[in-house]
Amino acid sequence: MTERLVATYHLRADADSIEARAQAIAVEQSVEMPLDAIEDPVILRDIVGEVQGIEQIGDSMFAVRIGLSAATVGDDAGQMLNMLFGNTSLHEDVVLHDVCLPHELGVAFGGPRHGIAGLRARVGVPDRALTCSALKPQGLAPGQLGALAERFARGGIDYIKDDHGLADQAYSRFADRVRACVAGIARATRVTGHPTRYVPSLSGDLDALRRQLTLARELGIDCAMLAPMIAGFAATQALATEFSDMALFAHPSLGGAARIAPALLIGKLFPLVGADAVIFPNYGGRFGYSSQTCRLLADNARMPRDGQRPGLPVPAGGMTLQRVPELLDFYGPDAMLLIGGNLLSARTQLTEATAAFTRAVAAHDYRK
Amino acid sequence: MTERLVATYHLRADADSIEARAQAIAVEQSVEMPLDAIEDPVILRDIVGEVQGIEQIGDSMFAVRIGLSAATVGDDAGQMLNMLFGNTSLHEDVVLHDVCLPHELGVAFGGPRHGIAGLRARVGVPDRALTCSALKPQGLAPGQLGALAERFARGGIDYIKDDHGLADQAYSRFADRVRACVAGIARATRVTGHPTRYVPSLSGDLDALRRQLTLARELGIDCAMLAPMIAGFAATQALATEFSDMALFAHPSLGGAARIAPALLIGKLFPLVGADAVIFPNYGGRFGYSSQTCRLLADNARMPRDGQRPGLPVPAGGMTLQRVPELLDFYGPDAMLLIGGNLLSARTQLTEATAAFTRAVAAHDYRK
Repeated sequence: MTERLVATYHLRADADSIEARAQAIAVEQSVEMPLDAIEDPVILRDIVGEVQGIEQIGDSMFAVRIGLSAATVGDDAGQMLNMLFGNTSLHEDVVLHDVCLPHELGVAFGGPRHGIAGLRARVGVPDRALTCSALKPQGLAPGQLGALAERFARGGIDYIKDDHGLADQAYSRFADRVRACVAGIARATRVTGHPTRYVPSLSGDLDALRRQLTLARELGIDCAMLAPMIAGFAATQALATEFSDMALFAHPSLGGAARIAPALLIGKLFPLVGADAVIFPNYGGRFGYSSQTCRLLADNARMPRDGQRPGLPVPAGGMTLQRVPELLDFYGPDAMLLIGGNLLSARTQLTEATAAFTRAVAAHDYRK
Repeated sequence: MTERLVATYHLRADADSIEARAQAIAVEQSVEMPLDAIEDPVILRDIVGEVQGIEQIGDSMFAVRIGLSAATVGDDAGQMLNMLFGNTSLHEDVVLHDVCLPHELGVAFGGPRHGIAGLRARVGVPDRALTCSALKPQGLAPGQLGALAERFARGGIDYIKDDHGLADQAYSRFADRVRACVAGIARATRVTGHPTRYVPSLSGDLDALRRQLTLARELGIDCAMLAPMIAGFAATQALATEFSDMALFAHPSLGGAARIAPALLIGKLFPLVGADAVIFPNYGGRFGYSSQTCRLLADNARMPRDGQRPGLPVPAGGMTLQRVPELLDFYGPDAMLLIGGNLLSARTQLTEATAAFTRAVAAHDYRK
């Protein structure tokens, strides 16, 4: 009963009020009622959140550590988010910065089922960084997406993911698109000999997610992508458990920028509930993540916790071929570089641009 | 193909860059790739997001209206969130402020299945505001929660909801708690004659949510609560459709993490996908929502759209008995007041405090 998650919140407050604010968060994220109206001493001791530390980290900025009862979470990943940040997310001056789980809870969630090693094994790449691109734009018919996948695969790329906007739209049904992409990649693989993997994007409720994964599996696919903040943490957890043969890519859609620290949400929590690879906006691209945030996020994803497999960081978002050496120096080989639009801009030269990307990654010297 | 959702974003920018920023959001939330690499004219015309208006609303603050293809959403509520704010949520200076849906999409989602009228009918209250309290703290055993529910119900309250922290914890299983609360309320109802309703909180993945709702229905319960931002919009939509006899309360947990305006997320989108009642933090309580935000949120929830039923606003969060007259003047009778901690603070006088609450609501003169 007394095991605790330790959540760290960053908040804006003045020195006079920070203790009261910290205590208010501890109550809000646990019993959510006046403590003097609680009669049961066991609840006061074991269930009420506990302020474990307050540290000033800047001008009117504080880091507050609060211990939350693991018993209130059980083994439901959605309930974990609820207890970590449910009501406190409604305060706009508080960020959920980090969390440390009791070992048993980490074990219960299971983490990446394949992780870096499994994603390397799928494409027969033991050491260098992995490569990835994206099928876009949405609006293309299944045959067009399949042809695009073939052209990427002919460039020798490792992974081809759907744009996260691709769902089960009337103009391009999931089943038709997946069949077309599998066929396109198979045609390329017969030429290249490289076992390029297709990562279809999943959408809908848990029934739909299961139907899509089942079809993908029947077609020989062994990877898929979903957005945990849209599908829900509980659905993500269920799929990682039920489809443990499939490697899961987590997309950051709806992940927000400011309220749950990206290094925590994407780097730590997504892998915890079963993501093998985590896609995130790279520094210096279209999004405002700093290089420090990206470093911490990648380190979090790759750090083995509670005996779990390390997850693979997948920087993305406005990346270019020209930046490949810089990014490999920054992330090292245990990463997957995802370049979408910049390859698609090559238009008729897409296969050649893709080949240049895969060559640049293969040729990179990490020791220099 | 050319029907569009019109999303309004508020963002910080200077006048020189706002047009480029608006166009970047239109691309990010649709095709997410360089437009000059798109060959298909139909995609450029029908699928690419369209900047429909830019308005300066403050110092370096702009409102940008963008038309997004309804065809990319289909009829999946999760995919709607993905297309409205998926990647753009990762920009920390952008808020999703509002959205107008094409009529057909509103009809497809279905809105509240019971709405204000259904929630009034359940408790036989045709005109006055409704009353609600919450079972807390978590950590109580099922029998204790049932006894608490009985004491609230003896005070004549209309609705008793679970604290949103109550899940399916080892120390208090959903099935045991729900049975105990139903029994407790039934004992009170035999005395009061008032058909007090119990609103159990649901948690877990779609399978668990269905199991919980099925059990609740077997026990004669006709209301339930879930947090759409944790369960996922698609799961919420599925439950509203499959359990159309149950009135759904939406809890705002995790609703602040993605920077969607509360009047939109809670007031408009939660009812759209099937919430009959929406719980939100009232102004002047523990949370920072302004009275204007609460006004707009309540107006949004109650406004019939696309032939749908009006939803019921449920202000909550640090409310007190003393504020009842003020709140009824503010919200009018089509509202449910939710007072939790303040009643629980009455401890041994809980039933009397609850009765004072219900009397104050019943006696209020809205015409003064």
